Amino acid sequence: MGDEVKLFGMWASAFSRRVELALKLKGIQYEYIEEDLSNKSDLLLKNNPVHKKVPVLVHNGNSIAESLVILEYIDETWKVNPILPQDPYARAMARFWGRFIDEKVIGTLHRAIIFEGKEQEENIKEVHKELKLLENEVKGKDFFGGDTIGYVDIVAQVVAFWVELLQEIGGLELLTKDKFSFLYEWIGKLQNIEAVNECRPPREKHLEYIRALVENAKSGSK
Amino acid sequence: MGDEVKLFGMWASAFSRRVELALKLKGIQYEYIEEDLSNKSDLLLKNNPVHKKVPVLVHNGNSIAESLVILEYIDETWKVNPILPQDPYARAMARFWGRFIDEKVIGTLHRAIIFEGKEQEENIKEVHKELKLLENEVKGKDFFGGDTIGYVDIVAQVVAFWVELLQEIGGLELLTKDKFSFLYEWIGKLQNIEAVNECRPPREKHLEYIRALVENAKSGSK
Repeated sequence: MGDEVKLFGMWASAFSRRVELALKLKGIQYEYIEEDLSNKSDLLLKNNPVHKKVPVLVHNGNSIAESLVILEYIDETWKVNPILPQDPYARAMARFWGRFIDEKVIGTLHRAIIFEGKEQEENIKEVHKELKLLENEVKGKDFFGGDTIGYVDIVAQVVAFWVELLQEIGGLELLTKDKFSFLYEWIGKLQNIEAVNECRPPREKHLEYIRALVENAKSGSK
Repeated sequence: MGDEVKLFGMWASAFSRRVELALKLKGIQYEYIEEDLSNKSDLLLKNNPVHKKVPVLVHNGNSIAESLVILEYIDETWKVNPILPQDPYARAMARFWGRFIDEKVIGTLHRAIIFEGKEQEENIKEVHKELKLLENEVKGKDFFGGDTIGYVDIVAQVVAFWVELLQEIGGLELLTKDKFSFLYEWIGKLQNIEAVNECRPPREKHLEYIRALVENAKSGSK
């Protein structure tokens, strides 16, 4: 009650989207402030002077950066609809897979799209290996979190919704239905959740945005 | 009571040392298993099949990898002598600075040592900037955690004890007393803690180990 919650984000940022989803799943009222990353606001720089990046959550004047740190903060501050499991080992596993997505999968996907020839092939193989590890985690469950959407699901949205666009842009086979049927089912279940859909960028605009990113990165890597 | 706790580590790994320190600070009995990273044991590969790295904590048969994830697990499983603060915002800040050390400072230090000429100069400047941010966090307090050693202190041991060795090896000025008096005071306070000293590798052996690492990395980067 009386909480002032502001989120500095960017519409196409998967990291911003995951924070917004967590806030929505918990039913927290917040003010969303869209940042132009080519011309960052003084408020963003003041609230995240170290990394100067979105997302930043500002709660009653306290600013928190880094999406995984923000997710934990949200879960500890507003107890309704827990994001992380309660058991310490299950919590550790959730954190492990969250880090795996951010530190491994996102980088491998990036290289699979940007590189060409043999390097690209190697990275596509690595994407498949990493997706298989995720597939094994969600197999036999509705969500990574069990019966309901949780921390790893929120973090893994980037896998659920970016990969399909990357496939289209690069003409690649990354997350195919025959190889990853359980991940496919999981993506279908995510799409049945209203808050998830509310947080997804409009597809065509998102596709063009990522296409431009990929082209920039490709010309930079040559 | 009746807990079986095993830690797979490597003597010179700062990530292993931080887990060992957390266990000691909480007075948890554990079996330490030293890994030869050039010839990893089947047990390590079984317990950390994804990253195949130390440290790995195995608690009653459950294995947990990634040092920051392990620290949270230890703190949630054994409540005595808390590592993280209790307040959600203070917890978020501790996690933020822990990530900052692992994702920023360690990489910048590495480049400051490995690179030469202008690139080296730039990275030394960046090290100074990053250390200044840490200095500001510990200023006016005994430890990052306040009156007692906590999460950020445990993570930042790598700054406290590696930087001095890197300076000696590279002939660089990184963490000097006149520029970073508060960090210097903090290092002194760490050295008064018995558990901290028990977890530090023997200096000369450690120096030779890091020297070899640096030489390898330098020849690899040419």
